[in-house]
Amino acid sequence: MSEIDFELKELRDEIDEIDSQLVSLLAQRRGVTTKVGELKSKVGMPIYAPQREAILISKRRKQAMEAGISADLIEDVLRRLMRDSYVSQDESGYRCVNPECEKVVIIGGKGQLGKLFVDLFTRSGYPVEILEQEDWPNSDTILSGAGVVIVAVPIRLTTKVIQKLNHLPESCILADFTSVKETPLYEMLKVHVGPVVGLHPMFGPDVTGLIKQTIIACDGRMPKEYLWLLEQFQVWGAKIYPVSAQEHDQAMSMVQVMRHFSTIAYGYHLMTEGVDISKLVEMSSPIYRLELIMVGRLFAQDPILYSDIIFSNLDNVAMMKRFAYRFLELLEDVESRDKDAFVAMFSQVSDWFGEYAGVFLQESKAMLVKANELKKD
Amino acid sequence: MSEIDFELKELRDEIDEIDSQLVSLLAQRRGVTTKVGELKSKVGMPIYAPQREAILISKRRKQAMEAGISADLIEDVLRRLMRDSYVSQDESGYRCVNPECEKVVIIGGKGQLGKLFVDLFTRSGYPVEILEQEDWPNSDTILSGAGVVIVAVPIRLTTKVIQKLNHLPESCILADFTSVKETPLYEMLKVHVGPVVGLHPMFGPDVTGLIKQTIIACDGRMPKEYLWLLEQFQVWGAKIYPVSAQEHDQAMSMVQVMRHFSTIAYGYHLMTEGVDISKLVEMSSPIYRLELIMVGRLFAQDPILYSDIIFSNLDNVAMMKRFAYRFLELLEDVESRDKDAFVAMFSQVSDWFGEYAGVFLQESKAMLVKANELKKD
Repeated sequence: MSEIDFELKELRDEIDEIDSQLVSLLAQRRGVTTKVGELKSKVGMPIYAPQREAILISKRRKQAMEAGISADLIEDVLRRLMRDSYVSQDESGYRCVNPECEKVVIIGGKGQLGKLFVDLFTRSGYPVEILEQEDWPNSDTILSGAGVVIVAVPIRLTTKVIQKLNHLPESCILADFTSVKETPLYEMLKVHVGPVVGLHPMFGPDVTGLIKQTIIACDGRMPKEYLWLLEQFQVWGAKIYPVSAQEHDQAMSMVQVMRHFSTIAYGYHLMTEGVDISKLVEMSSPIYRLELIMVGRLFAQDPILYSDIIFSNLDNVAMMKRFAYRFLELLEDVESRDKDAFVAMFSQVSDWFGEYAGVFLQESKAMLVKANELKKD
Repeated sequence: MSEIDFELKELRDEIDEIDSQLVSLLAQRRGVTTKVGELKSKVGMPIYAPQREAILISKRRKQAMEAGISADLIEDVLRRLMRDSYVSQDESGYRCVNPECEKVVIIGGKGQLGKLFVDLFTRSGYPVEILEQEDWPNSDTILSGAGVVIVAVPIRLTTKVIQKLNHLPESCILADFTSVKETPLYEMLKVHVGPVVGLHPMFGPDVTGLIKQTIIACDGRMPKEYLWLLEQFQVWGAKIYPVSAQEHDQAMSMVQVMRHFSTIAYGYHLMTEGVDISKLVEMSSPIYRLELIMVGRLFAQDPILYSDIIFSNLDNVAMMKRFAYRFLELLEDVESRDKDAFVAMFSQVSDWFGEYAGVFLQESKAMLVKANELKKD
């Protein structure tokens, strides 16, 4: 072993020793945060405490700068630790906002999203029952005495399922989790006389908890009666965003229907052009890899899910046609070499994005760093 | 203060104490990795050591599991620390692969990308000179005796600049950094008789170093003569991806031209539809926020940069028209309610993506977690 090799080995041993201490320290931290979770759960305090988080981070940023290391480094590490500690605190259970509620029924409670809420309600001490397709002969028993009924079935079944719910207890809250809101809300108000609220959880079924996640709430009837339900979601860490069903559906047609469709069309285009996907991946910079991730991820999922969303409303077809024609219109600028027109359009859209453009650019940089960190080779 | 408040305060003090130890430990680690960097720089060892990285991580994952904490948690933290330590090691300078090279000239060395390479060459001990627009009267002096000349100017100036380089020393390596490769390579081979290589660094100018970044290399002439230059990039941590200029340009038209154009068209569409951007952002789930980030980030940047790329080749117009017509063709399935045709197309594209679809879905999940961590409120 040369002298250099020896020196390097010594330094690496030192790093290993530090890393080993690091693991012990993190284990110790996890022990304490679990205790915090137990304590909070006992008295029903919310787990997510943004103010405490902000103070904790700013103290350590300051200390990091004094110690001559990067403040961003310590902030990133602490945010990662806090995410982990939320998970551990989640395990301690949650406060039950309405102990009077005798029964929560989740229709489709064995589905991915349904399962998540069955688990959360159960861990908050609510009696929960599940109603699946095969349980309909038994539905009278399951639904009797229900304080909340949530419809969490695939979008194409929602209307049919709601129409069967014409015997709910008068005071029962009726809600649904569909990704469109106008039609289900209309159907729920028609079938049920009590409190009604349309919900759209804005996250996929693979979240580990509701901390910082958004649930959109579209009022149907008697908001005072279902308020406690929204509070329960907040105890789980969710942010409630109230909006009208119409506004919700318009926004979703732009971010959900339109983007999904256009991404699918792009995948189809790549295939039809005869692109070599593995070479394309190899050649991609982090930002193009991220673009490809956003396309490819769709095709690992259920085509029925996406076609249900895209086929849900014929109005969307007209809006998407407008996109295609705008696309062709802008292409004409390129074909006629009219760079000035193109740049003018670009600047107009920049103005329209306003400060979001800059915010998004900053966030995308953080995402790119993360994407590069994920690369294993 | 109630008993609960008191208990909570005690636990939070404990966390603060642990976090303070954490900062000290990270400062200590940084001290050691800086020494590693100095040592490596002295003997010219590469900073990025994938094998050592893999072993280091697997050891700590094992220890984490034994300590009852998440192995992924410690891996994420260590990857973040390693990224930081690369930065510190970068500061120690790099091995010079070819000390015989008397001069490196970067044309456009004051531009964002040019600056990065001026810095890297300088820190590796090469004499570096910059040639900017105002320096052309002086170019004979600047270029005389150059061992490497790299053209790092905006795409619309590349050809004009290359055509001026008809007096380079015969043995000089001529290279460019343009994001298209066929035309510049053709021009370089015409103007210069010595070694020629077309390069495309696949990263933005805001990277902190070249670790794990890709540089595409398209051979022009005399690869043996410019091999040391590619080795130098590798010493800086870059991965070299050799490919023909034609294949490069085809791939870039798909991932760069087409995606940029379509994203710009989508931004224009959002604006023209009269969308309320702040509400759209509020209502977005992490995945839709990520979609919006990818759109908005473009509009924080230079319109000239994007229009130069999009207007660079008329062939791209035909390809993008094909996209628009495919988009309209698929919309017809939606309009005629032909879900089966849509699902069949979707499945075909899924097959074409093959295992990448699943890989991308996994990666997108990690990105979403990161996106949610970034949310400050």
